[in-house]
This record gives sequence, C-alpha cells and structure tokens, in this order.
Amino acid sequence: MDIVEFFQQSSGKWFSQRSSHHLAVNQSEGGKSNLLIEMLPKDDPAIIALCEQYAVDPTLALCGIRVTWDGKMEWDKEKPAGSTVLVPIAHSENPNEGKLLRTQDSVEKAPVAGRYAISKDDVLVLTTEDDTLSAEERLWFASPNLRLRTSVLKQSGGFRTASFCSEIRMGGIKPAENASASATA
Amino acid sequence: MDIVEFFQQSSGKWFSQRSSHHLAVNQSEGGKSNLLIEMLPKDDPAIIALCEQYAVDPTLALCGIRVTWDGKMEWDKEKPAGSTVLVPIAHSENPNEGKLLRTQDSVEKAPVAGRYAISKDDVLVLTTEDDTLSAEERLWFASPNLRLRTSVLKQSGGFRTASFCSEIRMGGIKPAENASASATA
Repeated sequence: MDIVEFFQQSSGKWFSQRSSHHLAVNQSEGGKSNLLIEMLPKDDPAIIALCEQYAVDPTLALCGIRVTWDGKMEWDKEKPAGSTVLVPIAHSENPNEGKLLRTQDSVEKAPVAGRYAISKDDVLVLTTEDDTLSAEERLWFASPNLRLRTSVLKQSGGFRTASFCSEIRMGGIKPAENASASATA
Repeated sequence: MDIVEFFQQSSGKWFSQRSSHHLAVNQSEGGKSNLLIEMLPKDDPAIIALCEQYAVDPTLALCGIRVTWDGKMEWDKEKPAGSTVLVPIAHSENPNEGKLLRTQDSVEKAPVAGRYAISKDDVLVLTTEDDTLSAEERLWFASPNLRLRTSVLKQSGGFRTASFCSEIRMGGIKPAENASASATA
C-alpha cells in the first residue's frame, strides 16, 4: 500500500475510541469521537494554500485529505471538534516516505513539516518534531473497516503520553477503491 | 534487532498500563499490572519441556523467556496473576520469522504454535490462531525503557477486542546487553 492508497482506504466516516495513558502519573483517560476523512482533489484550494504556507510546489502534492472530528476526551483538554488538512510530499527517490504537511494551529510560528513513512507491512508512521515536542504516530488497518492508531508524545526529553485509538468504519467504502471491502470489521 | 535481542531488551521488571476496547459495545476497560520478564538459559528445563510438548527438537530453540504478571483488569475477566514461557523457533531460511511456542492453559487440546515476525523497523508481530480465535499482537520499543503493545482479538469472523499496553521499565537494564540503556523513558 502506498500513502495515496492508505488515505483512500481511510476515507469515510469512523467511530473512534481512544485511550490515553499519562505516563508520569500512571493514569489513563478515555474518549470517543466521530471522524470524517475525505480525499480532496489535487487542485483543491486547501491543498494549494497548505503547500504555499510551507513554500512547497503544489504540483508535488501526491494527494490531500481533510480530517474532521467531533468528540472529546474525559479530561477535556483537547479540542472537542475541529478539522485539519494533510498533504504528503514524497521523497524524490523513495515514494514510501516523505514530508507530511498539516494545517497548523498557530499562525505565529513558521510551519514545521512532519514526516511519513509506510513500512512493508502497510503501517503508516508519522513523526512531527518542534523545539519542545516530538510525536510518533503509527496507523494500520486490522481490516478495511477497523483502523488502529497509536501515538507517543515526548516533551523535554521524557515521554508524556501514549495513546491508542480503535476506529470502526460507520459507512460503506467505495468498491472501486477497495476490492476487499466486504471483510468484516 | 532479532528476536533474541528483542527478548533481551524486554528482560526486567515493567509496570504495564492496559486499555482494552470492547468493539461490539464501544466500551473500554482499564487495567494495571506488574510484569517480570526473564531470559532463560537455552538448556532450561522449561524450554525443553515446552519443545517436547510441541514435538520440536529443543536444539532449535533460539532462546526462551518467562513472563510473570500480577495485576488485573477492571472487569476482572483475566487471570489476576500467572506466568507463561515463550520459545521462538526460527524459520530455517529466514531467522526474522518462525514459530513461537507458548505454555498452553489447557492440557486437553493439542498445542497450536503461534508465529512471530520482526519487521525492519523492529516491531515484533505475534499471531496465534485456533479453530475459534485469532489474535495479532504487535510489540515495539519507543525507547529501551518504554515498550508498547497492541493486540487485536478476532472471534468467529468478527473483531472482538483491541487492546493497548504501555509498559515502563521499573528497574535498570544490563549495560552489556543494551548499550543505549541510558535513554530516558
């Protein structure tokens, strides 16, 4: 699977159940949310605007998705609802890894691109780093209708949070895009 | 990392925090436990006994570990304490995958060996299948002192549970075995 196929398979409505482990205090927190993941056409204004924000040639964009979520964690620290656009830019010599542009929350800081890599066994690994935080997210499909996701957040040299999401597809998937769509979730 | 190195790095005492997502009912359950993971010498009687139980030549055993746990889940379905022995038997042509022998709970059924595979990015994937259940477990180190683990349980064609454990090392690791032991967890 390449990153475009991974995003195509991710398209649709999902119910996401999340557990976050706060490692310093050995406490966990639950949350539930609804996700909508949409493939965007390559010439979508959101893709072009994001590329311009990162000073990247928009013709290098492999694709783009918009992720919209609605839900919150028990501890209510995260945004209850929101939306972000993700655009992968492949490495010139290896399409299985590259930069991942993402809508930034803050307009004050210069945007820092994350990185993506797809492993041989179809696990998508996303890494983002800035001066104070680094995060590694891993996503994979247990079936076309069950997506799993872990993320580990590190701050000032120590691990802070390890999270897990199980995501169940709520609607059908387009048969043209996913031949194995009939598998049970 | 090969399977022996992975198990060596796993040796020691761990505090494990677990979240299980029961997918049919969209409910999650938490749990905490203490783990002790010990490397066994190749000629340990427990390794030889396990190989004999599976009718495998004990000289093919790459190594063996004993995992002892003490803790329970909120819903109290799992065994509160117990111990199991794991023995990897490499594929003759590819040492990065093979059979994984494991102590069986039931002595009535013929033992069914699981499978292991280590991916290029050092993720250990364990699969076990019998007539009614199949499970896939993925384990990896975020650092030498933080191990993460997911497992997905499928029964009669449908997914039942997706679980996540974050495991923090409680003691030191042997410097001879792990050069990068000083990394912060």
